[in-house]
Amino acid sequence: MSLIENLNWRYATKKMNGEQVSQEKINYILEAARLAPTSSGLQPYKIIEISNAELKEKIQPIAFNQSQIVDSSHLLIFAAYDQYTKDRVDEVFTQQEVERGLPTGYADDYKNQLFGMLSTREQQQQFEHAARQAYIGFGLAIAAAAEQKVDATPMEGFNNQQLDELLGLEAYGLKSVTILALGYRDTENDWLVNMKKVRKDKKDFVINLN
Amino acid sequence: MSLIENLNWRYATKKMNGEQVSQEKINYILEAARLAPTSSGLQPYKIIEISNAELKEKIQPIAFNQSQIVDSSHLLIFAAYDQYTKDRVDEVFTQQEVERGLPTGYADDYKNQLFGMLSTREQQQQFEHAARQAYIGFGLAIAAAAEQKVDATPMEGFNNQQLDELLGLEAYGLKSVTILALGYRDTENDWLVNMKKVRKDKKDFVINLN
Repeated sequence: MSLIENLNWRYATKKMNGEQVSQEKINYILEAARLAPTSSGLQPYKIIEISNAELKEKIQPIAFNQSQIVDSSHLLIFAAYDQYTKDRVDEVFTQQEVERGLPTGYADDYKNQLFGMLSTREQQQQFEHAARQAYIGFGLAIAAAAEQKVDATPMEGFNNQQLDELLGLEAYGLKSVTILALGYRDTENDWLVNMKKVRKDKKDFVINLN
Repeated sequence: MSLIENLNWRYATKKMNGEQVSQEKINYILEAARLAPTSSGLQPYKIIEISNAELKEKIQPIAFNQSQIVDSSHLLIFAAYDQYTKDRVDEVFTQQEVERGLPTGYADDYKNQLFGMLSTREQQQQFEHAARQAYIGFGLAIAAAAEQKVDATPMEGFNNQQLDELLGLEAYGLKSVTILALGYRDTENDWLVNMKKVRKDKKDFVINLN
């Protein structure tokens, strides 16, 4: 199936049936996010993978008691850098030098300019920039799940600060931005499963300046 | 090819050859973005489609004179709502009612709660929330381009305010967030085309709390 067919197949699953998703499929979905492009290749976010039932039960009240939190197979929590640091930027360029066999420091001018530009922004703006990058990977993870015929619910409805505390994300310098619940639809009990997918008409979504 | 194969095929094209992309392929890429999920289905952004050579020439100096702006076939400019308004939220729920054959006002409680939650945030936060949604569609447009074997350059390096002024986006209540240049790689002259794709190892990208 094409990407468009997969996007038409998927929907924001409201009720999952508790069935497990194979680790192979989970890894495929994570790989799509890992390959996602990010600003200057910085990959300024991480994904927390959770299948542990007890931990999901602790997350549920933080997420408005939504059933998918516990009826899903896995939760992928996308968490962005709280800010850009020199170490975080250096790490990316060093890896590029090593893997591409380039001379040490070949891109120092660009790197220093980039770090200067990012690090002089207010910390909240740095986080927002990182969060946006996480949403690219989030989109690709959703597409990967649909390709694998794994149901997914993109979720922003949770208390970010409480989730960060529960998972100890501050110690990683991370702040949660969004959750992707992965599992299988409960066809009998999901009110949304047979509803028409509604999107704005192309004429209301695209402004043509050709 | 699978999504993963397509993501491995693509790269941030640094030099394009000026060849045109068919309108059919452009429409496919736009359709992927249109089908992208967004928070509560609000689709709080639009895409400006540009192939006009004169307009691209005017954009180039606003975008650090990057060559892809003019050597691309099309530019897709993703522009997010500057804020959530009652009309913008009502429009979405009214369309759902009509297309799903639901009673008028069936979801008014949810809608009013949602609008209350969004509209009491500072305007900058409302825009940031909308911008994040645009990045989901941006990711899916990148995946769609790769599937169509259309090269793409995701670009954040431009003066947003100057671009907004050039395109008159304020009148639409929109602010530009990112550009996707679409075209075909100039294999002879693109320094990046044969470089290894570098991404963080899975162990540095995924935190496993299974």
